[in-house]
Amino acid sequence: MKSNFSATKSLFDIPKDIIYLDGNSLGPPTTITSKKINTFINEKWAKLLIKGWNSDKWIDKPKNIGNRIATLIGAENDSVIVGDTLSIRTYQALHAAIKLKPKGKVILSDSGNFPSDLYIAQGLIESLNLSYELRIVEPHEVFDCITEEVAVLLLTEVDYRSSRKHNMLQLTTKAHTMGAITIWDLAHSTGVLSVKLQEANADFAVGCTYKYLNGGPGSPAFIYVAPKHQAKSENAIKGWLGHASPFNFTKQFQPSSGIDKMQIGTPPIIASTALEASLDIFDIVDIKDIGIETIKLTEFFIDQTHKHCPELKLISPTCSQKRGAHLAFAFTDGYALMQCLIEHGVIGDFRMPNLIRFGFNPLFIDQNDVSKALEILFDIMQNKKWDKPEFKVKSYVT
Amino acid sequence: MKSNFSATKSLFDIPKDIIYLDGNSLGPPTTITSKKINTFINEKWAKLLIKGWNSDKWIDKPKNIGNRIATLIGAENDSVIVGDTLSIRTYQALHAAIKLKPKGKVILSDSGNFPSDLYIAQGLIESLNLSYELRIVEPHEVFDCITEEVAVLLLTEVDYRSSRKHNMLQLTTKAHTMGAITIWDLAHSTGVLSVKLQEANADFAVGCTYKYLNGGPGSPAFIYVAPKHQAKSENAIKGWLGHASPFNFTKQFQPSSGIDKMQIGTPPIIASTALEASLDIFDIVDIKDIGIETIKLTEFFIDQTHKHCPELKLISPTCSQKRGAHLAFAFTDGYALMQCLIEHGVIGDFRMPNLIRFGFNPLFIDQNDVSKALEILFDIMQNKKWDKPEFKVKSYVT
Repeated sequence: MKSNFSATKSLFDIPKDIIYLDGNSLGPPTTITSKKINTFINEKWAKLLIKGWNSDKWIDKPKNIGNRIATLIGAENDSVIVGDTLSIRTYQALHAAIKLKPKGKVILSDSGNFPSDLYIAQGLIESLNLSYELRIVEPHEVFDCITEEVAVLLLTEVDYRSSRKHNMLQLTTKAHTMGAITIWDLAHSTGVLSVKLQEANADFAVGCTYKYLNGGPGSPAFIYVAPKHQAKSENAIKGWLGHASPFNFTKQFQPSSGIDKMQIGTPPIIASTALEASLDIFDIVDIKDIGIETIKLTEFFIDQTHKHCPELKLISPTCSQKRGAHLAFAFTDGYALMQCLIEHGVIGDFRMPNLIRFGFNPLFIDQNDVSKALEILFDIMQNKKWDKPEFKVKSYVT
Repeated sequence: MKSNFSATKSLFDIPKDIIYLDGNSLGPPTTITSKKINTFINEKWAKLLIKGWNSDKWIDKPKNIGNRIATLIGAENDSVIVGDTLSIRTYQALHAAIKLKPKGKVILSDSGNFPSDLYIAQGLIESLNLSYELRIVEPHEVFDCITEEVAVLLLTEVDYRSSRKHNMLQLTTKAHTMGAITIWDLAHSTGVLSVKLQEANADFAVGCTYKYLNGGPGSPAFIYVAPKHQAKSENAIKGWLGHASPFNFTKQFQPSSGIDKMQIGTPPIIASTALEASLDIFDIVDIKDIGIETIKLTEFFIDQTHKHCPELKLISPTCSQKRGAHLAFAFTDGYALMQCLIEHGVIGDFRMPNLIRFGFNPLFIDQNDVSKALEILFDIMQNKKWDKPEFKVKSYVT
């Protein structure tokens, strides 16, 4: 199959006056998303009502969608389940990893991990009253810090700020030699990089679907449990959908087998329908081609800014194999610059203390968009257009 | 305000050939639900993109919707937050209650509780390695079993099978005299009964929105934390949205204040939009009137079946003050009878081992519907129409 990015681009209805370089934070809707939801509500929910759980197989959506995502992250069939939020999935993965009783007593993570992952680890240690230590090192120190003390290696593959990408195979391999279990957060990888969980022999992975998968704000998350761990993995939150026979309504919890055991409550079907719509696009492109295209776009952006905007300091790795699909630049007045860019139709975002980020999702961003964005950026920089009071009033952004 | 139930009925587009008496399991969509979602996707998400989190206040939806639900359950402003699933909310409530350190060591529940609540309690005791005992008594024994041994009283107000309603005020009062903390699961109460959490001095409550609130299959759940407990309550799952300043991305978790601290991950905005649409209906009716109307409909159904179908044994309380908005009848061939009723357009459901359930949501069910349903039921019973092999093949239903 040859990936046709002009075909995918036509499936997004992004306003003509903007260039959206923030799909790494929130993907845009596809043109079929609202139609699919409409059809679901009016033809399925309204007509089938309660019967839809069986006859339209709503109950199977978490696993069916999980299997579609599995193909994008190099995971085995029936090893991914969809639902809940990334924070909850991380809680489940970490709890399950600890219950597998690795020898060490350290949960190793790095300062580039998304804070929620660190909070979840802190909270779990505290509430389970565990004698574990959460050790946070610098990203470049991770490899050397994987010692026999480590029980769980908890990392986000692509740093949400710098875009630095960890070497999943290398770190997982070393973790295993030290008796540690790995949890990979794929928030900034899924749908844009060729992740290879099975090849890397990864143990657990989690991810969200509202970034490069375009599932919508707060769309359901997912968890991956390697087939070898499924039998012994426990679900921390024993809701009825993780029961072997939830509809028998027995008083005693009996875990389901396989990846199904990681389900918790009633699955979100409207949100799942939106996600199914956006996943349809991946039927006409190859995830490898998306990765290749991303490299072209980011390399072009790096090259041009290096030439024309040396005052923007790239903090993402220059080697394309070592980064994700977004770029981050340090600039003292980064916040004001980003507000000014947004005002001029180039949507990226800002991260404390001084970083501006641009995401490049080839499903809807092409070379032409990038050229236009660069033109606007250069004009703003050359004429210091960002240096106005109105761009300096801060408010939160996600 | 006078509640106008013919106005609310016109806002549901239930197929003409069915009478939907299963709103207690899954509410139907309102006619504005798909329109609201369409508008959200095409006018908000597609146009505002990442900016919508601030400019369209998506980030505030969990609390804003929580405040709308608060008015239906007699809760204080800023004491309810929406999101996640009922099982997760129960996990959070139970964890928070235990961390408040009540003196006892027993989690008291009853055999009428929804199994997921019991599973969550079992799982929490196990994974936290707590020296707590989950004690499950019969519903009528609960009052007498609230002793000083009890740490947490974990009950569903309205029994999902029998419809028996606990006396929230009486049980909460006794629990408090014994030093116990109460958690009320309002799954079968919210949106149809006049719940009075504040008046009952309840401590925690949880509920779902896909039954009488018609939010859609798997729509977001909610948690209530009494204002007096908010400062000391801990969130078991410390995701970034429960942080005091999530967008500062600090490495150390610092809980938010008030009910916000019970948030976990990124809120589900499409699902929340569906819920907002269905909540709009409660702006034109009074929850008290819904309760009164429910009693009329259930009393009529009981009276008629008693006269014409004595072989159906009502297992719901005959006193309308002591039950919820659905009725359950025992019948040896209940499964086949319900399949036959469904085949004839009367949608109720079946619960093991031999119960058939009918739900009466006055927002879309009126006296005329009930009369028609009874007519069909009587015909089926008198002519033993259910006694056919095709009605006896079982499959799961929610």
